[in-house]
Amino acid sequence: MSLATLDTSQHPNLPASAATLFSAKAAKKLSFEQIASHIGRNEVAAAAIFYGQAKASKEDILKLSEVLDIPEAQLEEQLGGFPDRGRTVEMPPKEPLIYRLYEIVQNYGYAYKAVLNEKFGDGIMSAISFSTKVEKETDADGNNWAVITLRGKWLPFSRF
Amino acid sequence: MSLATLDTSQHPNLPASAATLFSAKAAKKLSFEQIASHIGRNEVAAAAIFYGQAKASKEDILKLSEVLDIPEAQLEEQLGGFPDRGRTVEMPPKEPLIYRLYEIVQNYGYAYKAVLNEKFGDGIMSAISFSTKVEKETDADGNNWAVITLRGKWLPFSRF
Amino acid sequence: MSLATLDTSQHPNLPASAATLFSAKAAKKLSFEQIASHIGRNEVAAAAIFYGQAKASKEDILKLSEVLDIPEAQLEEQLGGFPDRGRTVEMPPKEPLIYRLYEIVQNYGYAYKAVLNEKFGDGIMSAISFSTKVEKETDADGNNWAVITLRGKWLPFSRF
Amino acid sequence: MSLATLDTSQHPNLPASAATLFSAKAAKKLSFEQIASHIGRNEVAAAAIFYGQAKASKEDILKLSEVLDIPEAQLEEQLGGFPDRGRTVEMPPKEPLIYRLYEIVQNYGYAYKAVLNEKFGDGIMSAISFSTKVEKETDADGNNWAVITLRGKWLPFSRF
Amino acid sequence: MSLATLDTSQHPNLPASAATLFSAKAAKKLSFEQIASHIGRNEVAAAAIFYGQAKASKEDILKLSEVLDIPEAQLEEQLGGFPDRGRTVEMPPKEPLIYRLYEIVQNYGYAYKAVLNEKFGDGIMSAISFSTKVEKETDADGNNWAVITLRGKWLPFSRF
Amino acid sequence: MSLATLDTSQHPNLPASAATLFSAKAAKKLSFEQIASHIGRNEVAAAAIFYGQAKASKEDILKLSEVLDIPEAQLEEQLGGFPDRGRTVEMPPKEPLIYRLYEIVQNYGYAYKAVLNEKFGDGIMSAISFSTKVEKETDADGNNWAVITLRGKWLPFSRF
Amino acid sequence: MSLATLDTSQHPNLPASAATLFSAKAAKKLSFEQIASHIGRNEVAAAAIFYGQAKASKEDILKLSEVLDIPEAQLEEQLGGFPDRGRTVEMPPKEPLIYRLYEIVQNYGYAYKAVLNEKFGDGIMSAISFSTKVEKETDADGNNWAVITLRGKWLPFSRF
Amino acid sequence: MSLATLDTSQHPNLPASAATLFSAKAAKKLSFEQIASHIGRNEVAAAAIFYGQAKASKEDILKLSEVLDIPEAQLEEQLGGFPDRGRTVEMPPKEPLIYRLYEIVQNYGYAYKAVLNEKFGDGIMSAISFSTKVEKETDADGNNWAVITLRGKWLPFSRF
Amino acid sequence: MSLATLDTSQHPNLPASAATLFSAKAAKKLSFEQIASHIGRNEVAAAAIFYGQAKASKEDILKLSEVLDIPEAQLEEQLGGFPDRGRTVEMPPKEPLIYRLYEIVQNYGYAYKAVLNEKFGDGIMSAISFSTKVEKETDADGNNWAVITLRGKWLPFSRF
Amino acid sequence: MSLATLDTSQHPNLPASAATLFSAKAAKKLSFEQIASHIGRNEVAAAAIFYGQAKASKEDILKLSEVLDIPEAQLEEQLGGFPDRGRTVEMPPKEPLIYRLYEIVQNYGYAYKAVLNEKFGDGIMSAISFSTKVEKETDADGNNWAVITLRGKWLPFSRF
Repeated sequence: MSLATLDTSQHPNLPASAATLFSAKAAKKLSFEQIASHIGRNEVAAAAIFYGQAKASKEDILKLSEVLDIPEAQLEEQLGGFPDRGRTVEMPPKEPLIYRLYEIVQNYGYAYKAVLNEKFGDGIMSAISFSTKVEKETDADGNNWAVITLRGKWLPFSRF
Repeated sequence: MSLATLDTSQHPNLPASAATLFSAKAAKKLSFEQIASHIGRNEVAAAAIFYGQAKASKEDILKLSEVLDIPEAQLEEQLGGFPDRGRTVEMPPKEPLIYRLYEIVQNYGYAYKAVLNEKFGDGIMSAISFSTKVEKETDADGNNWAVITLRGKWLPFSRF
Repeated sequence: MSLATLDTSQHPNLPASAATLFSAKAAKKLSFEQIASHIGRNEVAAAAIFYGQAKASKEDILKLSEVLDIPEAQLEEQLGGFPDRGRTVEMPPKEPLIYRLYEIVQNYGYAYKAVLNEKFGDGIMSAISFSTKVEKETDADGNNWAVITLRGKWLPFSRF
Repeated sequence: MSLATLDTSQHPNLPASAATLFSAKAAKKLSFEQIASHIGRNEVAAAAIFYGQAKASKEDILKLSEVLDIPEAQLEEQLGGFPDRGRTVEMPPKEPLIYRLYEIVQNYGYAYKAVLNEKFGDGIMSAISFSTKVEKETDADGNNWAVITLRGKWLPFSRF
Repeated sequence: MSLATLDTSQHPNLPASAATLFSAKAAKKLSFEQIASHIGRNEVAAAAIFYGQAKASKEDILKLSEVLDIPEAQLEEQLGGFPDRGRTVEMPPKEPLIYRLYEIVQNYGYAYKAVLNEKFGDGIMSAISFSTKVEKETDADGNNWAVITLRGKWLPFSRF
Repeated sequence: MSLATLDTSQHPNLPASAATLFSAKAAKKLSFEQIASHIGRNEVAAAAIFYGQAKASKEDILKLSEVLDIPEAQLEEQLGGFPDRGRTVEMPPKEPLIYRLYEIVQNYGYAYKAVLNEKFGDGIMSAISFSTKVEKETDADGNNWAVITLRGKWLPFSRF
Repeated sequence: MSLATLDTSQHPNLPASAATLFSAKAAKKLSFEQIASHIGRNEVAAAAIFYGQAKASKEDILKLSEVLDIPEAQLEEQLGGFPDRGRTVEMPPKEPLIYRLYEIVQNYGYAYKAVLNEKFGDGIMSAISFSTKVEKETDADGNNWAVITLRGKWLPFSRF
Repeated sequence: MSLATLDTSQHPNLPASAATLFSAKAAKKLSFEQIASHIGRNEVAAAAIFYGQAKASKEDILKLSEVLDIPEAQLEEQLGGFPDRGRTVEMPPKEPLIYRLYEIVQNYGYAYKAVLNEKFGDGIMSAISFSTKVEKETDADGNNWAVITLRGKWLPFSRF
Repeated sequence: MSLATLDTSQHPNLPASAATLFSAKAAKKLSFEQIASHIGRNEVAAAAIFYGQAKASKEDILKLSEVLDIPEAQLEEQLGGFPDRGRTVEMPPKEPLIYRLYEIVQNYGYAYKAVLNEKFGDGIMSAISFSTKVEKETDADGNNWAVITLRGKWLPFSRF
Repeated sequence: MSLATLDTSQHPNLPASAATLFSAKAAKKLSFEQIASHIGRNEVAAAAIFYGQAKASKEDILKLSEVLDIPEAQLEEQLGGFPDRGRTVEMPPKEPLIYRLYEIVQNYGYAYKAVLNEKFGDGIMSAISFSTKVEKETDADGNNWAVITLRGKWLPFSRF
């Protein structure tokens, strides 16, 4: 199995923590599944921390420091602030895997809106009070299927 | 409960079928859940047909004609071709509900890619061999949560 | 005092309700303050309904019908669905008044983020569980000042 | 409580002063509230100075030098010129917190314009003769609310 | 001498008043100089009213109605609201004359800023408390020179 | 009085001469007015040379070398070629002062064109056979006004 | 030989004169060479008039009226104003023939600049005091070559 | 006479050969006319090689090495591959001289197409089987004119 | 089997011929394969004529008139000019099928260039002296494969 | 014959492996045909690996290490992760050779869609389950033709 790595020449604007974390992950040959399991978070959340897209708590930093053999002080310095999200993907995404997700939004966006509005009323599905996960299924013919679940709190528009 | 409607002055580039279908839906006061149940398809797929984002089969046309009281010949003419997908949403989406989905791709795109690559290898989750659904959950505190599931076939990059 | 009006040739993509409402408002010579007061909502919210940017409830429709002398059935048909928000302003805004608001976001965006993060932690100020108002102040020298208040629920990022 | 920090690899085009100030702030473990209180300015203005979005006066430089233990000459050199504003946020903002502010402009822009025009006449709310502040409210249910106030001088268009 | 006219097929998004005014101007064979002189405003301001870029006062409407033989009620209806400025030019301008103005901003923008900042301090030249005029000069060799004057109030950034 | 300075981290694509000139200007504590007066050019032109937007003649180089204490050979090498204009401002300008100039073009572009065409015929005001200046006026109430004059040769379109 | 025609559904923003002229040209089965020869102008200039990109003089209008059998008054009304140039091509051009010209500018732009600067000094080749022509050459092998000549007055940047 | 030079801080993405060649040209004080004459190519082509927009043959490399005193091996290494064209100009061009060429395409694009189609049929003028040259003319009044000739093979669209 | 149709509300800028041809095709229930076979051209070329992307010869018009029962004069008028290519697809394509082709160019563009340059030298594969075809293959497992062949003349860059 | 090389100053965002591989290729003077033949893959795929657009398997890495004399560990480290595709070409492509491919998609995109839909039904040609090749043909007149074949699995849209 190959592991996800980071080539900083392709991502010059990621936070310094990204280089630190990915380089330790490569040295330790750990998958996100293993890292997530160690810090007790979902593997998408774990990867999001690596890309500077999610905040690591004090405990996360401690456990990342352990599992990746990175001095805690260094991680604390690099991960102690607040994530500056949204800088990894240039939209529209050029990366084929990420483009497919974008295409789903492009094609089904209004269908989702219509169905959600009829089910919940006028509002949105939060992307903040939100969690997501990735699962793998294999069907009877041996084909693999990726299943991504998005779960967000429904926020009705305030009346004012 | 309010029903999703279509204001064609806001969507001048949707296919002619969109106006036909939404106008009949409004007249009949039917939700997508009811329509989907009648034609035996998922409600997101049903809504996608209304927006010109999914193909209606012969049977779908027959059943839509029944449930919406639209002459079958008219539907056949308007829905008989192949959808020209992707024209409903101007990207980045300005609509807040749809923007939240876009933001999820923007924020978690590389995290999904890293986790999917480690789970499945080099490839993509198909947006074509693909289905999706929307569910409503209510937690113990009475908060509603929207759950969107994306399920796509894993396609490994061919070696050549 | 002049009243805000709508020239549909400048806004071809607004919903049909916008033309209906603005045209009745002009005929009745009513300000948004008067309309808002009649329907019991904030005047920014009232104006947002006119531009198709906020949902009118059953009661709003009834009261708008009264105050503007529009048949309730017509309003019900045009306002009964869900707003398709975000289509009034082409970004970056070309309109000088709206541009100034945009410029505030552009100039102070990161300052707001830093201050909000330190005050509230990792999260966002909701634009959905949200209200806003406009006030006029006159200082000792007779200068007028516009005061816009934005009040949104703080949503912390979920840990997952 | 976490403090806002700056990762210069994410913001390569900020002025040199930004790195100087944020690095001292991190070393001193000071919040913007503390810094603002020391220099006698609003905390949003203080943060804006850090991001190169507001001018520091002679006195501000002196006090920043004190509170942050930075040689005054260095600050004088880096902050003595005129800010080159607007370079921190790439529009549309990708950062979720900042995007919400942008979305408010996008959704309510014309509603603000209509209400302001009716209240004040033909003109704009200045973003220059302008101040802003951030407040925290906690409601009876323990929910936190962010309140942002924008206060700008009303400028009528000159007749010529 | 040719007169400036409006071809509405080239400017579909101008307000209805633009067609009314330009068509009467063509019928009356009046120049902007003549119209401006009649209504007592600068000719650039007069032309700006025609393009929906400046507000006509009650008196302007009355005088435009006289000089152009347009029923006052019609003008009142079309010009009575607030201009929705900024919609005439698609930026960057494709029109060569307008592009040259844009190019001046592009080439000399920072030079203006540096000189203005040194002369006035930290602030901007207002485009709202603002007037402009166009003059024609002919030099000794018979060459014509256009002179455009921009005069705006200096607004210092507020300290807060 | 503060002096205009250059922070090269904010302007990585300016020519090498910009850093040389601005750094000497800061060391000498000279304003553009003083420099312009020394080299016998308008201060906007002087600032434009600093930003790489105008060509320095042999004599300009000699005098800049004198007044700024920069070896003439170094200036000759850095300023001896032809300016590659237009690289300082990213359009639309994010800087508020420069944006106001852009907004004037956006709002009054067609009004200028109509008035200029009626005054001069079919052609343009040159931005090359062109000069500009900045003046400061103070009115009876003590308000400052910035006056920018643009003077360009009128070029009629050739008939061919 | 086929003649160039205009399909107004593809060019909805051309001036009304374009439809008038092209439709008469099609009815008369005239080439631009024939029309240009009749009005005594270059055929590129003639075509530019048809697309609203060049001004027709009084005499041009008279002769166009003759050769195309269009009432002079109609042409006078449609062509009497000033061209609003630059609206025919959406840049970058999608049309392959026009794209090749764009590509020449993209590839050789700086080479032209370097050579022109060395030959003429600091300035530009005017696109206003400008003429152009198209010629056809056939080489010994029977291959056809298109030769486009651009001839513009050299304008040195003013010293100020 | 000034010579064209290259400031690499303004053109960070040019190939390494550009810095090598321009720096030698500056040291040798050679014009493109002199260099072109030495290598037996047109001066636009010579300049295009300097900007990485044209391929240098073995012989070109040898002669450039001679005339510029650059080790042949270094030039061979830097110029031996295939040009990656199109990276010098950011479109639309901000540089005034290059913009004028762009404007010619924008204004006369469809006129060229109409005239070329009528003269040659359905096809394009090649930008590959193509040559160009720049000439200087001085008219009776002492005005200089730049003449740019574009000569490309006519390629008819294949019928298939 | 479904047939490709055209919904003009989705393609408002196609030439008038597109509506004529597609509407006759739908009435006649003909596939592009049948039409292409009748006019003796490849089916991609036939479809390109329908979308206004290829020129129909005199003979093509005659045969299209026969097979589609359209008056020859009407087709002659609508198809007699020169195609204004490139207006069907808004780039990047939103349509999933067309996007996949775009993605191939995006992902393999430089690989194609490197391989073509090494095989043919410095030049391009013409898109004008060019033909293309689509074939269907079914493999041993019953999977269908689409095979698109692009065949273009190699054009070496001219030396000048 | 010249070989394809990489100038990293033109491609700063390619992965580190690109510099490693291209530099070894240049030192070894190997064509992609030779490299592809050594590693048993198609030459387009081989070039795609060099540009970071295709994944190298364990065996590919071993063989690349052999043929290019690069330490296997270095290649393993640089090529062991998953490609981050799509970063080589800025769309629309400025490079003339790659632009021609883009133009084919732009011109024939809908023609391909119509023909593919009629041949295969509602779906897409995969760009993932996909291979491509480049061939050279020489016709009777000695002209060279490039033939690019695209072969992708047909994926029908799932019914759900």
